[in-house]
Amino acid sequence: MDEQLKKGWETLRSIDGSAREKGVLTELNQVSPEFVDYIVKSAFGEIYSRPGLNKKVREMITIAALTVMGIENHLKDHIHAALLVGCSQEEIKEIIMQMATYGGIPRAINAMLVAKTVFEA
Amino acid sequence: MDEQLKKGWETLRSIDGSAREKGVLTELNQVSPEFVDYIVKSAFGEIYSRPGLNKKVREMITIAALTVMGIENHLKDHIHAALLVGCSQEEIKEIIMQMATYGGIPRAINAMLVAKTVFEA
Amino acid sequence: MDEQLKKGWETLRSIDGSAREKGVLTELNQVSPEFVDYIVKSAFGEIYSRPGLNKKVREMITIAALTVMGIENHLKDHIHAALLVGCSQEEIKEIIMQMATYGGIPRAINAMLVAKTVFEA
Amino acid sequence: MDEQLKKGWETLRSIDGSAREKGVLTELNQVSPEFVDYIVKSAFGEIYSRPGLNKKVREMITIAALTVMGIENHLKDHIHAALLVGCSQEEIKEIIMQMATYGGIPRAINAMLVAKTVFEA
Amino acid sequence: MDEQLKKGWETLRSIDGSAREKGVLTELNQVSPEFVDYIVKSAFGEIYSRPGLNKKVREMITIAALTVMGIENHLKDHIHAALLVGCSQEEIKEIIMQMATYGGIPRAINAMLVAKTVFEA
Amino acid sequence: MDEQLKKGWETLRSIDGSAREKGVLTELNQVSPEFVDYIVKSAFGEIYSRPGLNKKVREMITIAALTVMGIENHLKDHIHAALLVGCSQEEIKEIIMQMATYGGIPRAINAMLVAKTVFEA
Repeated sequence: MDEQLKKGWETLRSIDGSAREKGVLTELNQVSPEFVDYIVKSAFGEIYSRPGLNKKVREMITIAALTVMGIENHLKDHIHAALLVGCSQEEIKEIIMQMATYGGIPRAINAMLVAKTVFEA
Repeated sequence: MDEQLKKGWETLRSIDGSAREKGVLTELNQVSPEFVDYIVKSAFGEIYSRPGLNKKVREMITIAALTVMGIENHLKDHIHAALLVGCSQEEIKEIIMQMATYGGIPRAINAMLVAKTVFEA
Repeated sequence: MDEQLKKGWETLRSIDGSAREKGVLTELNQVSPEFVDYIVKSAFGEIYSRPGLNKKVREMITIAALTVMGIENHLKDHIHAALLVGCSQEEIKEIIMQMATYGGIPRAINAMLVAKTVFEA
Repeated sequence: MDEQLKKGWETLRSIDGSAREKGVLTELNQVSPEFVDYIVKSAFGEIYSRPGLNKKVREMITIAALTVMGIENHLKDHIHAALLVGCSQEEIKEIIMQMATYGGIPRAINAMLVAKTVFEA
Repeated sequence: MDEQLKKGWETLRSIDGSAREKGVLTELNQVSPEFVDYIVKSAFGEIYSRPGLNKKVREMITIAALTVMGIENHLKDHIHAALLVGCSQEEIKEIIMQMATYGGIPRAINAMLVAKTVFEA
Repeated sequence: MDEQLKKGWETLRSIDGSAREKGVLTELNQVSPEFVDYIVKSAFGEIYSRPGLNKKVREMITIAALTVMGIENHLKDHIHAALLVGCSQEEIKEIIMQMATYGGIPRAINAMLVAKTVFEA
């Protein structure tokens, strides 16, 4: 296996255990294994594995981005991951509240309701 | 002056000195002083002044959001503020690079070029 | 209770009876009561309660914005509210049709189908 | 000339005099006259000419949409048109302020600064 | 029936058989027959019927646009249509993978999962 | 040099000569050489170099995506590249016109004006 791909899988697993590996990426693998490879190499092998920011901050900024973009299924995965790498529920709620300022209140409400379902799970 | 508005101004000044007060908010004040009050109260008096996240993290998540939304003039102000509250240039560049994954490469390139102009100033 | 929060609740109730109070805001209150307070104060206490536009126009422009942003669950609440403050079904359909021009046809189709479900309820 | 195209031009002129005809549409005509025809027929011949909403409301909802989408050059043309069909500066400012709630504060700030330049012209 | 509307229906049928006619447009017709007419005339009578691009390319660029905009129900209809006018599954997957670069990985993942459901149907 | 990075540069040069290498990527290199490497590897080494779509189609779908996203500086580079890999001006104009349907008329107008400047250069 390509070195970068290997590093990507290690990084991904260190962030969310095997949640996405067993979830969205398995489903995606059934339609495009090459796209799974691309995502793991590019996002996790290249970006998340870089030393400049710790995993907690990486998940915090991702929650911010996905909130203002309104992409709720991925937001769910990243709120789950954020809790695993050390974000508290309070921090996640603060991030989402602040996003009301930048992406508008409706997207922030929807993100907070996603957080609610993750916290309850 | 309303308590919350006062708190808002204090919070804003603690983040970026008087950059926005002398910049965009002065310009905005010429067309809608009520909107300036709303922004300062709502974003800075209500949100940024909350204790749950420190100023550095608040600026980091804002840079993430403005990068994926492609709002370059505000991104410029927040990169400036981020540097003032303790983000390093390296951290800001990492945030923007990671956003290529979420908001696409073109918006991340544009944000990195905004960062370049702020770093050079 | 804070004056502005009180004004916010009065304004919200004057727009949609208790629909959101019993719906999305109750759900949201279970995860972040502070965010509920923020929304009611900021959107309804500060903005919707201002005298410069009547409630009908305020709902019309909100329907326009939520249509082009594609935020369907909030659009549903605002179409409901629009009917309560005096918009006709015909006016709502005209707004959505016009948005095909600005936000594209697919988002306008989706908004029209949301309107259909509200009209039928 | 096609009937609908003719109706489109009449409607457009009744909204903003000859501002766009002499401005953006002249420029566009140099690269794609067919696109100019499409726009005038489709947006103005088909939509704006419908009786269900008056011109003032049509411009109000357009200002809302363009504010949250962040399309500033077109927003400028529509704020100009809104003034011509009877919107007051105060109403335009209220619309933009309200959009801070839906599309976020940065886009509303940028729209308000566009309004400022139109009001001053 | 208006000539352009007639041409629109012919073009639409030549692209996806009667899929949308029996699906989304029937549903839409129950709330706004005028909007159905507008869509068929404007999108299919005016645009898709033009000779400058073949149907396959028209569907390819539409899949690209709907992927980056994240409009999944319409994407589903257009992936279905793309297959009917001669796109292969491989080509559709390549388009979506490339969109990860422009609209970000999450939207491309969601589009790929939509493609999966269409391919399996 | 990493194999994939090398392949990325070859692919990029085969698409637009040295336009971006001398333009945006040189500028970007001054602030983040690592980001330049990431972009060239990820977008061009991994995606554009894949065999499933030819370069012309790859540029066509990119023009579609950048039009609906409203990212005009990158659109300019890709219209330039599209002409180099065999798109005609007529095809580019057709793509942009069709995008009025999906991303709205204002974004399509702005894209057509970008095309105009590229065609004239």
